[in-house]
Amino acid sequence: MTEKISSYKYELIQETIANPEFKSKLSNILKEMTANDLASLIQNSPPQERKIIWDSIELEYEGEVLGELDEQLRDELLKEMEPEEISLAISDLEVDDLVDILQALPEKITNDVLALMNSRDRGRIENVIDFPEESAGGLMNTDVITVRAENTIELVSRYLRFLKNLPQNTDDIYVVTKNDEYLGILPITKILTSDQNMTVREVMDTEFEPISSELNEVDVYDLFKAKDLFSAPVVNDKNQLLGRITVDDIIEIGADEVQEDFRALAQIEEDVFSSPKKSIKNRIFWLSINLFTAIIAAASISLFADVFEKVVYAAVLMPIVASMGGIAATQTLGIYIRAEAMRKLNRKNFRYLFRREFIVSLVNGIFFSIFIFGITFFWFSDYNLAIAISIAMILNLIMAAVGGFLLPYILRKIGYDPAISGGVIITTITDLIGFVTFLGIVSFLVV
Amino acid sequence: MTEKISSYKYELIQETIANPEFKSKLSNILKEMTANDLASLIQNSPPQERKIIWDSIELEYEGEVLGELDEQLRDELLKEMEPEEISLAISDLEVDDLVDILQALPEKITNDVLALMNSRDRGRIENVIDFPEESAGGLMNTDVITVRAENTIELVSRYLRFLKNLPQNTDDIYVVTKNDEYLGILPITKILTSDQNMTVREVMDTEFEPISSELNEVDVYDLFKAKDLFSAPVVNDKNQLLGRITVDDIIEIGADEVQEDFRALAQIEEDVFSSPKKSIKNRIFWLSINLFTAIIAAASISLFADVFEKVVYAAVLMPIVASMGGIAATQTLGIYIRAEAMRKLNRKNFRYLFRREFIVSLVNGIFFSIFIFGITFFWFSDYNLAIAISIAMILNLIMAAVGGFLLPYILRKIGYDPAISGGVIITTITDLIGFVTFLGIVSFLVV
Repeated sequence: MTEKISSYKYELIQETIANPEFKSKLSNILKEMTANDLASLIQNSPPQERKIIWDSIELEYEGEVLGELDEQLRDELLKEMEPEEISLAISDLEVDDLVDILQALPEKITNDVLALMNSRDRGRIENVIDFPEESAGGLMNTDVITVRAENTIELVSRYLRFLKNLPQNTDDIYVVTKNDEYLGILPITKILTSDQNMTVREVMDTEFEPISSELNEVDVYDLFKAKDLFSAPVVNDKNQLLGRITVDDIIEIGADEVQEDFRALAQIEEDVFSSPKKSIKNRIFWLSINLFTAIIAAASISLFADVFEKVVYAAVLMPIVASMGGIAATQTLGIYIRAEAMRKLNRKNFRYLFRREFIVSLVNGIFFSIFIFGITFFWFSDYNLAIAISIAMILNLIMAAVGGFLLPYILRKIGYDPAISGGVIITTITDLIGFVTFLGIVSFLVV
Repeated sequence: MTEKISSYKYELIQETIANPEFKSKLSNILKEMTANDLASLIQNSPPQERKIIWDSIELEYEGEVLGELDEQLRDELLKEMEPEEISLAISDLEVDDLVDILQALPEKITNDVLALMNSRDRGRIENVIDFPEESAGGLMNTDVITVRAENTIELVSRYLRFLKNLPQNTDDIYVVTKNDEYLGILPITKILTSDQNMTVREVMDTEFEPISSELNEVDVYDLFKAKDLFSAPVVNDKNQLLGRITVDDIIEIGADEVQEDFRALAQIEEDVFSSPKKSIKNRIFWLSINLFTAIIAAASISLFADVFEKVVYAAVLMPIVASMGGIAATQTLGIYIRAEAMRKLNRKNFRYLFRREFIVSLVNGIFFSIFIFGITFFWFSDYNLAIAISIAMILNLIMAAVGGFLLPYILRKIGYDPAISGGVIITTITDLIGFVTFLGIVSFLVV
């Protein structure tokens, strides 16, 4: 049901945008939407509509919407805003979102915005801003409720009743010493179901290992996934409680990680609805790199130019070897990138994977080299040409596997992300090997 | 901290496996691990070690591990198990995991397993098994606590205390009529902080729209993400409460969706650590398709074989045009697949994207055709060859954008997933257009 309503609304909004006289109607529709719906509406609109929607959102709502947007788009919008506007917009945000936004600003603007904030907000921020955005410390919120171990459950119940409004999505409260050292978790459900005369110490759960503020966000995501957590406490290296992470703050991390790899493999680095100007710039980058590598491949072919004068069909068959090598290498590279992203590559299974890729390429190499021998012989009735292509095929498929596996390993060693540059480099290598081996053998056997 | 311990353990386990005399030691280590750690250990181990680990897990634990495994691997393990073993292993599972496993079995085995279960378990299952695995109904658990609106908070508190152990991760209980019709949510925190003499009706939250049992799992994931939910009630079309979905059951859906697209783009369809036999079969499929399309491209080249006799350098330059078209088409296809996966493609922004891709390809086409004209003229000092390649380049880049955008649209219309087959088809098209336009123009201008 929810889906239908929101897609109906979406169409309605787009129609309203098309008619500028309905501007006040647009504000009214937008006012009723949640920050997340607004963020997704902006994300999925072409640039011009994005601007109209953004300008129609009320100032006190802008902060929440900013908190829900993709980083790239958020930073674009922030660039257009004045420090005063930013400080007003973000003052009601949860501290983790607030700090994300401040960290995205140029340092000068950050200081201006901080100076414009009230001291309460500045205080909240100072606890979190020093943690890197991609660490548990950067993900956490500081709105935790803490109690002491020696209190009774009854006293805790009264304390919560006194607080009246608990922070959003509070499922656990935490037990700490008077120096804020973490002792354990007291689930809200336990407060309800336990004997009210028992002490917190008797009821609390001490088995859960709190998260270190330095843990990387991907590890935090994996931990939540592995242990079916709704929330978890974050501590510093002295085991002092700093805050808590809730599952809604980390739910997207898994998808974002794979998404980065997907974009890298498709050689796009942009948000889907970006402007033509942005897209052109972005694509030109990858196309230029590809042009460069294609020219290298062409240069390698030109070494054998005299072959074509005598064996015209070498030019016909040549792309087959290169293209098979390219596919095989992309497959192996894809496997490597996925294995690495799962963060479980160690010496032992690295060796297994390498051996397997080698065996797979050997078997497939033999299969396809026999197959292409038959096709070529049937097609051109030229025994030497068929021999040349089948040797080139098996060599290129094996090199595709070895290279598709060792190249990302080497790229990582020297500090590059294999997902981003791996594809272009490896297909250049397989193109080169495909062309040179095939044409080399032809010129040796045939010419 | 968690990360270090688990990777230390992982190495330890692999060493233990290598020494068969330590078999009892292995069971002891495995006994201390959570089901999810075991599942991830199996997932990240080569086939032989997988078997040793699986055989060392105690029967009553196997069910939980099965529940945490990737579908593909889970189904493989289930195939080796007897119905008796399965029914024992899965009897303690949550009902959503239990039903997932039953649905994965061949129908005959499912009936055998059901017959071996006790009536309590059979009863739990019958409420859920009719829902498709990928719907809200298939994701939900039925272990919900319900109360009536006319009761006081005090009575609810006493009822919960009487229940003693609430289902895992209970953050809300639900308010229903005597016919099980859904009325609202009563958060556990509200029970704690509200005046005990108020009625449930006065305290409950009626704003949240319950999830329809038919909602697709991706929409469920989006809803949880948009509204920062920990859990949500599921109703049938008569608004009767059926169960609830908790965030831990849906946290992986986002990543799984992108992962499928990634695998499709890399043309791999297997789990990372699958056996050589599986990998060979799988890769041969994609390589064969590629061989077929490469031969089509070669056949198109052979139409112009006489060109090479006169213009040898045509063979040198030919792959450049094809390869640029392939990259540009993959970029546009990648954008389309991502936009579609975000489930926000509608008529309006479809048109925007198509127009943008066209403009981008036109601008880049002009840029690269001028560029390649210069390079070719500088390299071979052949004016006609330079003209031919620059015309072929601009045509191929524009066709790459148009095809890269319309092809997935058409594939979807006729019922195919563009992520799976789109890449191969579109690069075949750009290869063909690249070769034919370039060689055609060369044979017209030069020969």
